[in-house]
Amino acid sequence: MRAVGVIVEYNPFHNGHAFHLERTIEEGEADVVIAAMSGQFLQRGEPALLPKWNRAHMALKAGVDLVFELPYQFATQKAETFAKGAVSILASAGCESLCFGSESGDIYDFHQTIQFLDDSHDLYQEKIKYYMNEGYSYPKATSTAFKDLSPSKEILDLSKPNNILGFHYIKAIRELNVPMKALTITRKNADYHDEHFASETIASATSIRKALFSDGGDIETVSQYVPQTTYDLLNDYYIHFKQFHQWEHYWSLLQYRILHSSPEELKEIYEVEEGIENRLLTVALQSNSFKDFMTKLKTKRYTWTRLQRMCVHILTNTKKEDMKKRMCKATYLRLLGMTEKGRIYLNQRKKDIEIPIVSKLGSFDSPDIHLDIKASKIYALGGIKVYQQNLINMEYNQPPIYIRK
Amino acid sequence: MRAVGVIVEYNPFHNGHAFHLERTIEEGEADVVIAAMSGQFLQRGEPALLPKWNRAHMALKAGVDLVFELPYQFATQKAETFAKGAVSILASAGCESLCFGSESGDIYDFHQTIQFLDDSHDLYQEKIKYYMNEGYSYPKATSTAFKDLSPSKEILDLSKPNNILGFHYIKAIRELNVPMKALTITRKNADYHDEHFASETIASATSIRKALFSDGGDIETVSQYVPQTTYDLLNDYYIHFKQFHQWEHYWSLLQYRILHSSPEELKEIYEVEEGIENRLLTVALQSNSFKDFMTKLKTKRYTWTRLQRMCVHILTNTKKEDMKKRMCKATYLRLLGMTEKGRIYLNQRKKDIEIPIVSKLGSFDSPDIHLDIKASKIYALGGIKVYQQNLINMEYNQPPIYIRK
Repeated sequence: MRAVGVIVEYNPFHNGHAFHLERTIEEGEADVVIAAMSGQFLQRGEPALLPKWNRAHMALKAGVDLVFELPYQFATQKAETFAKGAVSILASAGCESLCFGSESGDIYDFHQTIQFLDDSHDLYQEKIKYYMNEGYSYPKATSTAFKDLSPSKEILDLSKPNNILGFHYIKAIRELNVPMKALTITRKNADYHDEHFASETIASATSIRKALFSDGGDIETVSQYVPQTTYDLLNDYYIHFKQFHQWEHYWSLLQYRILHSSPEELKEIYEVEEGIENRLLTVALQSNSFKDFMTKLKTKRYTWTRLQRMCVHILTNTKKEDMKKRMCKATYLRLLGMTEKGRIYLNQRKKDIEIPIVSKLGSFDSPDIHLDIKASKIYALGGIKVYQQNLINMEYNQPPIYIRK
Repeated sequence: MRAVGVIVEYNPFHNGHAFHLERTIEEGEADVVIAAMSGQFLQRGEPALLPKWNRAHMALKAGVDLVFELPYQFATQKAETFAKGAVSILASAGCESLCFGSESGDIYDFHQTIQFLDDSHDLYQEKIKYYMNEGYSYPKATSTAFKDLSPSKEILDLSKPNNILGFHYIKAIRELNVPMKALTITRKNADYHDEHFASETIASATSIRKALFSDGGDIETVSQYVPQTTYDLLNDYYIHFKQFHQWEHYWSLLQYRILHSSPEELKEIYEVEEGIENRLLTVALQSNSFKDFMTKLKTKRYTWTRLQRMCVHILTNTKKEDMKKRMCKATYLRLLGMTEKGRIYLNQRKKDIEIPIVSKLGSFDSPDIHLDIKASKIYALGGIKVYQQNLINMEYNQPPIYIRK
């Protein structure tokens, strides 16, 4: 059986994802699709709309055959580290190819760009450094440096978020030296960051979340942009847990976490750098919502995303020493769900899979997975009081979701 | 002007306190009464019903002339340390005597007991050690050891909470070697721990708090047990802040604080000893209220009070290293409030007062006071969301309460 991999957050799974999945199966000439999916906290430094189990369920219902958790140590990181973790998961699971959506849609552009940057490596680094010193954020500095190098037109637009991710996926394949082919598909219609609905049936996950959280927003308003299966699962979660998760539900904990700490303690947290600890303390004292806090914290030097990721690490109390040794590749495959076909695939392949497959927490122990468990506990505390215990129990007791079809 | 000192929590100020205050002025033959009053967290390991400023206001309205904050480093400790801090405050403020309520009511008993225990020191320590090894809590072990020594009947009943405190006040006077005379008054009617109203006008602060927090409990139900001034100030606080403070309001923060920590991090917290860190993590995961948590945590080895104090330190993130150098005596006098007479007294005496008097936070900085500031910030986070900022601002901007009469 041939497997193709996808790297996803599915926050939530929508029609754009469904389109991507369909094309992935064609392009990958695959029998099964395997997803490396972020857990409770996401790459843009946000709690997921709903828990990893429910999002895995959406994925399986929509055609993914196996869902493995992208561990916290990769899922909440900048593109480069995120990509390495995800690629290592898919490679460990035996994927022969990886298919990602991009603004470009042409895999040749990616290889060209990587080659071009390899050739101009020293000059490129120098320029990045120059723009950083000018006070640019890191992403702004890299894309400006790249533009400065005046590559020809066939080369990639590295200011586009999905091009950047794809670029790092391919670099990760090379660096980890894994036998996996990269494929890309043009993303349909909606821009990653779009906050508004862009077509009749395709909308970005951002705009879907925005609609769900807006005044009077209910699940009905997004129904045309998501498959029926997602719609049902969103409804189901809302009926049981009475909310979707968002940063504001964690604000009182984050504020408390900052205010009970000394600057020295905050400096131990991953991504708290360059003296921002004092600003954190001052701003937390003056803010009455997460949005208020972030708006006051934001400067030209930091992207919103980077600050949000730092906030996730503060919230989960993830320290520099917790992260520093864990950057290279995944050391376990936590199985969140499978279809019958996925189960058969795993049975056939498991003798070749070199890292442990974790289906039950009780039967596996490693310091690496503790970050995921802690993330789930903290994620649960943003739930409504009476449901927190259920959310915590999911982490310990939920077996992988299984779909017969 | 002669000053007599009292050591108080006023949680809240009630008729029993008023009686004690009246008798204190007579016994101390004093012109002014000075109170060393606990800040936001109390000796039994609880948040105060209302902030220190409002409790200071009650005290001034009822006849106290000067209120100084008993710093966190003493206020949340076992009797011995609590007593040392409080006695050092009163001595620094120039009190010639200290007057405390006790079950005994006879100062001679206290001196006799101290003498008796000095004489039997080694045997007493041996017996305490023996009972601790048998699994008794520390207070139980000391009172049983004391009983074993079979002192004569004139000697103090050291199983009574106010006798214990008084005993430590007098020991503190001796150990700090300060020129202060100890006086005692029999406590009227209500036992310290009484949860029920015991007479027509006198009730313990415990029973008053219980009434305020009971279903359908309102301020009216306690009006006969408190002076009109307390009644008005309770009402006033409730109108502005819509609640009184209690542990349950801090439960979600405490639970989060425990769950985001590793056992090693919990062990750094003051009073987290003997491997209880693992129990804390397990029990926090299974509990859905502070009461539930405490009930599950309680064992024969620990008193409820000791566990609550430990919880206060976890909540405020107070570490062993924060406390260890700060046990002996107060290094500043934070002025919470004064009457006109108190102001005159201070003006006359201030040249003799050897430690800084802090009336405004901005004009004083010392690592010692940071524990109090942090305690106030955390205390504020137990308030209702929209009032938290006001509660935080009080710590920084509230000038000492001033009462002209």
